Amino acid sequence: MRVAGEEYRGVWLGEDGWSVNIIDQTRLPWDWHVARLTTRAEAAEAITAMRVRGAPLIGATAAYGLCLGLREDASDSALARGYDELLATRPTAVNLRWALDAMVADVGEHAPPERPAAAYRKAQEIADAEVETGRRIGEHGLALIEAAYEAAGRQRPVNVLTHCNAGWLACVDWGTALAPVYRAHDAGIPVHVWVDETRPRNQGASLTAWELGQHGVPHTLVADNAGGHLMQQGRVDLCLVGTDRTTRTGDVANKIGTYLKALAARANEVPFYVALPGSTIDWDVADGLAEIPIEERGAEEVTHLRGQTSAGEVATVRLCPEGTAAANPAFDVTPAELVSKLVTERGVCEASAGGLASLYPERSG
Amino acid sequence: MRVAGEEYRGVWLGEDGWSVNIIDQTRLPWDWHVARLTTRAEAAEAITAMRVRGAPLIGATAAYGLCLGLREDASDSALARGYDELLATRPTAVNLRWALDAMVADVGEHAPPERPAAAYRKAQEIADAEVETGRRIGEHGLALIEAAYEAAGRQRPVNVLTHCNAGWLACVDWGTALAPVYRAHDAGIPVHVWVDETRPRNQGASLTAWELGQHGVPHTLVADNAGGHLMQQGRVDLCLVGTDRTTRTGDVANKIGTYLKALAARANEVPFYVALPGSTIDWDVADGLAEIPIEERGAEEVTHLRGQTSAGEVATVRLCPEGTAAANPAFDVTPAELVSKLVTERGVCEASAGGLASLYPERSG
Repeated sequence: MRVAGEEYRGVWLGEDGWSVNIIDQTRLPWDWHVARLTTRAEAAEAITAMRVRGAPLIGATAAYGLCLGLREDASDSALARGYDELLATRPTAVNLRWALDAMVADVGEHAPPERPAAAYRKAQEIADAEVETGRRIGEHGLALIEAAYEAAGRQRPVNVLTHCNAGWLACVDWGTALAPVYRAHDAGIPVHVWVDETRPRNQGASLTAWELGQHGVPHTLVADNAGGHLMQQGRVDLCLVGTDRTTRTGDVANKIGTYLKALAARANEVPFYVALPGSTIDWDVADGLAEIPIEERGAEEVTHLRGQTSAGEVATVRLCPEGTAAANPAFDVTPAELVSKLVTERGVCEASAGGLASLYPERSG
Repeated sequence: MRVAGEEYRGVWLGEDGWSVNIIDQTRLPWDWHVARLTTRAEAAEAITAMRVRGAPLIGATAAYGLCLGLREDASDSALARGYDELLATRPTAVNLRWALDAMVADVGEHAPPERPAAAYRKAQEIADAEVETGRRIGEHGLALIEAAYEAAGRQRPVNVLTHCNAGWLACVDWGTALAPVYRAHDAGIPVHVWVDETRPRNQGASLTAWELGQHGVPHTLVADNAGGHLMQQGRVDLCLVGTDRTTRTGDVANKIGTYLKALAARANEVPFYVALPGSTIDWDVADGLAEIPIEERGAEEVTHLRGQTSAGEVATVRLCPEGTAAANPAFDVTPAELVSKLVTERGVCEASAGGLASLYPERSG
């Protein structure tokens, strides 16, 4: 993806051929900073401190983190320690375990002296696979945006509403929900994105607005409260969001507030699309509301907020009276019945057990 | 209402018998400051700068503002100028015009020398009437909270979700949506309030949390995104919100985001109650979505935010990349079909033309 006209990925190998570069996302949108990771501990810290976030990017960064560790010690015990340490950085991320399992399975086949080189090959493969997944999600989702453009008589931009950040900053490149938007924009279809600010962590205001701006995609930031009104007024052609976990029946757990937008989309006959890599489907779960545990995060994410002062300093301010109690459920579950279509790297399907089975026959039944 | 154990109103006469005291709400929740108004211009500025806000409180403050002006010049022309100046402070507030009309009708009957005293009497009458309205809304709404407490087997607190600030800070005392909460709390019914922070102006985080805290009502602040999830989880017994304008058919225009909560309440079979004084009913409007114009406020309310730093300073920070475009619709319309009941000073009714006509027969038909 483009930043100030240059192409970037969310994680990439340094020019020295071994160190690992990431964009420190905790400093966005105020400060553009490429952090160079040279040890496994630095990679683990980058994930824990959310310098990188988003399931695909976390997985790829952990894979490279294992490479950095193996450069120093490629023994079986060091490999096991590295796996444990990196897995513990964000225990709930599905892709993290998947990427580390894939790394260990591959690297473990080699004798210790060959392990570092094998690890870098495998990590590159994982990163490339994530990019390809995003590219394909973009391709399949493009057709939905094209259809909306046709439905509008090709007379005006297609208005897409998105929630949180499911763009390239969450992935290695392209993104999930934003991949079709980038594809459409690059294909010359006029697209305009309503960006939900996404309280309490403001990923929409700070990350989605930033990456859309860098790529030149027209967008307008709105409070999370505004989307229902925009849909009532006919100002949204389609909603397009990501998902952290998808049940085999098509329920989706995504950033808190997604469910409210899905309700408004249904009430106003606006299509509600969810983009996902197949790796986020949890084939063991059938009832998202009953079975997916919702992470409760710290109250200070609600009571306090970070931004930039007019003097250019990044400051944290409290919004409420001192000592106010706050609850902070991080995700909610949108039942499959509210989801118009799922957009995957293998194509578009109904949000249902049958729909997902048609695209992933090897995993269903 | 209580603040630090003492009883207050939103506007009250000074001990000198003529100056007017208000709580400067722009400094809440960080700073408790009673501002003394001594001229009509100061009263107008307090309304324009939103030191006082909320339709009933604006009306009462404007009434007192007219008194202050008449102390200096009680001529017909000064009365007309005062009316015009105060009416222009917030041109869309229904109560403002109503209060000023009532003042001029009363004061105009008197000869200039008697006008100041007459004005103070009438302003006091208007303020007292607002207090009585809030008290009655509280009384009628109390029955709904009591019913929820009974339904829960009197075993646990009643969980009320509210949006924005429709408490005593918006009124002269009691409030609208919060009046039943205070009544229930004072009557010994355990109540817990989920306080929507209410982006972009954060009236929930800064004002509702503050006034509930001062009165000792248990409450928990949440991001606006959280309410749907809380309702899915059965953690909300009822929603209770205010309204800025109600159609004669029961549609309600309230703070942006209200509609999303009403959709979630309907989907999860949670009662959705709207509290209002009869003065907010617009008897000329039948279709809220088609006929109520929605105020679009400044983008900087979305892109920037005010809070207190750990050093105790109140600072404004920007949440998004510099130059990000933002839209800021201030209200949305919740169709009557999503409203379970309307709670007025005359009682509880269906959100429908028939329901309102039964309570306000003199205005309907």
